[in-house]
This record gives sequence, C-alpha cells and structure tokens, in this order.
Amino acid sequence: MEIAPPGLKGLAVADTTIGAVRGSEGFYHYRQYNAADLARERSVDDVLTLLIDGALPPEMPAIDLGALRELPREVEDLVDSLSPYMADALAVIRSAMLAVAELEEHQPVLDIGHVERRGNVLRLMAIVPTIVARHYRRRNGLEPIAPDPSLTHAADYLRMATGEVPAELNSRAVEKYLVATIDHGFNASTFTTRVVTSTGASAASALVAGFGALSGPLHGGAPGRALAMIEEIGGAENARAWVQAKLDAKEKIMGFGHAVYRAEDPRGIVLREAAEAIGGDLADRAIGIEAEILAMLAEWKPDQTIVTNVEYWAAVALGIAGFPPELFTPTFAVSRVIGWSAHVLEQAEDGKIIRPSARYVGPEPLS
Amino acid sequence: MEIAPPGLKGLAVADTTIGAVRGSEGFYHYRQYNAADLARERSVDDVLTLLIDGALPPEMPAIDLGALRELPREVEDLVDSLSPYMADALAVIRSAMLAVAELEEHQPVLDIGHVERRGNVLRLMAIVPTIVARHYRRRNGLEPIAPDPSLTHAADYLRMATGEVPAELNSRAVEKYLVATIDHGFNASTFTTRVVTSTGASAASALVAGFGALSGPLHGGAPGRALAMIEEIGGAENARAWVQAKLDAKEKIMGFGHAVYRAEDPRGIVLREAAEAIGGDLADRAIGIEAEILAMLAEWKPDQTIVTNVEYWAAVALGIAGFPPELFTPTFAVSRVIGWSAHVLEQAEDGKIIRPSARYVGPEPLS
Repeated sequence: MEIAPPGLKGLAVADTTIGAVRGSEGFYHYRQYNAADLARERSVDDVLTLLIDGALPPEMPAIDLGALRELPREVEDLVDSLSPYMADALAVIRSAMLAVAELEEHQPVLDIGHVERRGNVLRLMAIVPTIVARHYRRRNGLEPIAPDPSLTHAADYLRMATGEVPAELNSRAVEKYLVATIDHGFNASTFTTRVVTSTGASAASALVAGFGALSGPLHGGAPGRALAMIEEIGGAENARAWVQAKLDAKEKIMGFGHAVYRAEDPRGIVLREAAEAIGGDLADRAIGIEAEILAMLAEWKPDQTIVTNVEYWAAVALGIAGFPPELFTPTFAVSRVIGWSAHVLEQAEDGKIIRPSARYVGPEPLS
Repeated sequence: MEIAPPGLKGLAVADTTIGAVRGSEGFYHYRQYNAADLARERSVDDVLTLLIDGALPPEMPAIDLGALRELPREVEDLVDSLSPYMADALAVIRSAMLAVAELEEHQPVLDIGHVERRGNVLRLMAIVPTIVARHYRRRNGLEPIAPDPSLTHAADYLRMATGEVPAELNSRAVEKYLVATIDHGFNASTFTTRVVTSTGASAASALVAGFGALSGPLHGGAPGRALAMIEEIGGAENARAWVQAKLDAKEKIMGFGHAVYRAEDPRGIVLREAAEAIGGDLADRAIGIEAEILAMLAEWKPDQTIVTNVEYWAAVALGIAGFPPELFTPTFAVSRVIGWSAHVLEQAEDGKIIRPSARYVGPEPLS
C-alpha cells in the first residue's frame, strides 16, 4: 500500500486550470492572470466571469449575478428564524443554501450537464451576500435590505450589509478584499468541495461542506483577532515591548507567518494599498506596528523569512472600510464561495470519485 | 511535485485503528472484530461503544444515547418548518445538526479536549434518528413521537419512525442493517469528515460535510432502486429475460458489482440472513432473482467475479422489516454518522491539517 505524505502536503491530487500559488515568489494567479493585479483593477463580477467561464470581460460577456441575489420567501423566513440563536453566519449560510437548492430542485452534479451546473453555482454564490447581510441586520435589530439587481455584486453586498452606499475608496477596499480572496490554491475547503463533488452530490452539498472546512481555526483563521491585536498594542511605540512579551510567553502573533509564502503575501500588499488609500489613524498605526513587528521577528529568527499574512491587512482594510469584525469571516465566505464554485465545475468534468485508503494499524482482527 | 493516483485510489492517507475492508477476502472489521459477526450478535449501542471508546461491553461500559436523543424545542421547530418543502432528509439533518451545535455551543475540535469532543459527537449521532423520524412523520401528516430514553438506539428509532414497537425479527433486521453499515473503510464521506476535522472545525461541521458526500449518487447509492428493480422483474422466472434486455441496452444492474469486494459482500450475507429470517413473498422472490442474475452475470463475464452488493440486500431487508423506501437513505445516515464520529475523534487526535496540492495545467501566467 502506497503511503501519502502527512496531511497530503505537497502531493498533487488534481490537475487544475483555475489558478495556483507560487509561495517562494510571493505570487498567485487566477487562470493566467496575476491575482493581485486583478484585485487592483477588476470587479468581483469580472473575476468571477474569468473563473467560471474562463476569460475576462469584454472577451467573455460579464456574468451578472444581480437577478440571482434575491432569496425565496421561505429562505428569508428560515434566516429570520435562525438568527436569534445562531450567531455563526457560516451555519446560517449552510442551512439557507440547502433550502434554496431544495426549493429550486438542484440535481446531483453528475446527473446534469455543464449548463445546469453553472446555473446552480451562480445562483448559490449569488445568495451568500444576501444571507450574510440579512443575518447580520437581524442579529443587530436592523431591518433587512432587499438586493438591488442594478448594482455590482460587491456594491450590493456593502449596501445590503451597511444600509448605505459607501464612499468610493471604502467600496474599492472591500472589492479588492473580495477579489483577492476568491481562490488560493488547493486549501482544505477547496479540497473538501472537490471531494464532495466527486461523489456526484449537488453543488450545494459540496459548497456546504466547504463552509464547514472554512470554519476551522486552522483554515479560515479569525481575522478579527488581528484587529484586536492592533487595538491592544495601540501604536508603533508599544509594539516592541508587546512582541517581546509574546515571544517570552511563547504565544503566537496573529497575522504573521504563512504556510506557503516565503516572500510577502501578495494579498497583504493589495490590502495595505487599499487601507493606505483610505488612510486615517488606524491605517497609520497598522503600518507602524507592522514595521516594528517585522523588524523584531527578523532579529528573533534571522535565518527565516517571516512575512505579514493576509489576516493582518484583511482585518485592517475591512475595518477601515467600515466593516464590523463580525462580518470579516462572512465576507470571506462571500468571496471564497466563488472560487469553490469554479472547482465544483472543474471537478464535475472529471467525474471520478475521490476515494483514498487508510492503513489499518490496530490489533490484528480475528477473522 | 509528487502526483497522486487518480481519485487517490489505493493511497493510504491516514493511519486508523477504527477498521478496514479486505475486499478480496469478503471481510471487513470494526477494531479487531469481524463486523458481520458484530451485526449478527450485537446491538448498535454495543458497537458504537466499541468504535467510540475502543472496547465492547461488558469490558467497556456501554454508551447509552437514550438521554441524548431529545431535540431542543428550537430544533423541533426548525425541522417542522423545513419539512413542508424539504423532501431530502439529509438536508434537514444537516440544518438541524448545525442548530443543535450552535445552541449547545459546541467548540472547534482543536480548541477542546477528548472528553468534550466525545460528548459532542455522542450528542450529534444521538439526534439523527429523532430528526429523521420527525421529518418522515411530518412529511406524511403524522404526529412526531418523542424519544424514549429507556429503549435501545435502534428500537427507539424504529418506534419514533413507525409509531409502533415492531416484531422482534423485523427489529433485528433493522438493527443488523444499522450495525453492518456503521463504517466501511475510507470512503468519500469518511474522508470528507476527516478533512474538515483536520481544519479544527467543530464536529458538527465535519459530520455535516459527511452527509453532503453521502448524498452523492456515486457514494450513498439509492437503495430504493434495488427494490424497484425487484418489483419490476416480479419473480425469478422473469429475471433472465430482464437481465438480457439490460445487458443488450448496456444499462447498469442495480445492486450488483462492487468497487472493492471480489468475494461476496459480507454485509449482503448478513442482510440476506435477516430477510430470510422474516421470510415471505418478497424474501423468496429476492433470493430467486438474485440467483438468476448472478448466474447470468457469470455467463456474461466468466473471467470476472461479479457479486451482489449491499444495496440489493439492504433494500430487501429494510423493505421486509416494514420500512418505506424513503427511509432507506436516512437510515443509512443514522448508522454511518456513528462511524464518522469515531473518525472525527481519531483525526482530532492527529491535529494536523489535510492540505494537498494541485498541479496547475492552464496557460502560463503573466506574472
């Protein structure tokens, strides 16, 4: 029996044309495009067109999710009934997504063709901002806001969540975040959606499983923590003492270090640019604190390259754009579901079940 | 970059002491015990004690799920509100399970210790029969029946679903089915629950993902189809003509052939025994039809061993025991969630994220 490396690390379990990460170069791409540049220059709508249909507008007609964001009445009621006791937006998304798929009779991916599968994933990705915003507003005693099909996906999400059309720079910061986090190699949630897709299950079943993996502390992280850390430190002048205390206590420093990147995380660069463009006290402090922490970490481990990861600048950018921390993880869900959807479509074309083995290492059975 | 075999077939991705399948011997085991013998001799309660706590009663105190089967009021309401439009029991289970985990504040598996994780999975496996039975009865205009903590897990499931305490042989047939299908190697749903667990997510997130994989046609199958086939054929005297027509049309014959077993599926043997013990017209016809189909298939492919798989006899045994086909797949869920739970506990001990890679095969990116 062939034995896989622990955690399947470094093992290529699929071929993909969706994108990849080159950690040593600090580079990642969607299809053949630099993903950080796409985040700087393109809308969510353009980039999802690239991921789902294979080319950017205007080469490919832009996908318009506008008409797909509205929830069926039953699902609005479901979100409303769950919201009082269900703080976890990822759990609400999962239940609401299964309900939409059932009401609209989504079929197992292997029982339908590409056109129908594509329709299913577009519908399912489109409802995520609507669910997140509705849940957020219900939790906070605010009236839900219906989707506006005339807006872009990012703008409508912002409006449904915050109740207002935000300033251009704030809106661009959120859109950069959304584009930058759509896909990122073969992480555990992407792999999960592909394993479930490989059984032939519906796209909703695959995406729901992905949200489960995303909820894991080793995966989705907790972007709110980086913001809490900045508030705890206060300003750059306190950073060295704070980091030293953490290193002495052998505690982890949130937002620094990455499993894959050995050069600066390109997502962090884009999001720092977005935060700097808006500017203000938090942006200034975040920049100063980052510089001090990186200097300290370089002194502490001179032979290693410890970089700022996406969590730090995601928290700052979303925070400066006016998002409350409770919306950080759900906003990640709004973007990542687009990447998973591309993987559902690619895996469904493969059509083969992913069914590994295990090595039995217990007492010899008495047959 | 190392490339995995397609579908990860034959690749050992984990070490396990939970059990294994020896396809060429027609043998599978839970821990060190012949699983088919456990199905003949033991209750669900005994066998889940073996899988969760590592030894059989009386060596290990038997786990009693009785007090854990009751649903919180909010979750009863949730099941009731979903049932009118949600025919799919696996979707209802997923939503209800997330709600219980949220109401009872289940934490990510890597943030808690074994005792708390064990408590979480016992609670989550215990509610599945209650959810399934409530959903089934609501769908059929019947009043739900509350769990009775004094009954065994299998007997209470039967009572909650059918509304009566069934005859001993029928009850034993269902219990044999439940024990025989708790675990079966590293199938796609088991692997899915382990991948999600490896992110540190809650047990509920892992199990919910497992139900998604189970819902796939390549995984859970559709045990109802085998019963429909028997009804379509009628009796053994019509089997040859029916099979010949299928072979001529190059259509699949439900319930025959297995990816792993080259000898008779040991689960099929146990369930045939259970069906024979109850007896009656359906059992007689199923036995006669099976013999004819196997003879035909042996003539058709003399160099291959095509065996009856569990789907055929599962359908017959559950059907003879008085279960409607719409409860076949949910009943599989009642048992398989126990096996997944053992895998959640084992994977959580490992503590390492499962994060494979993919090989990018698209156009070279313009970096």
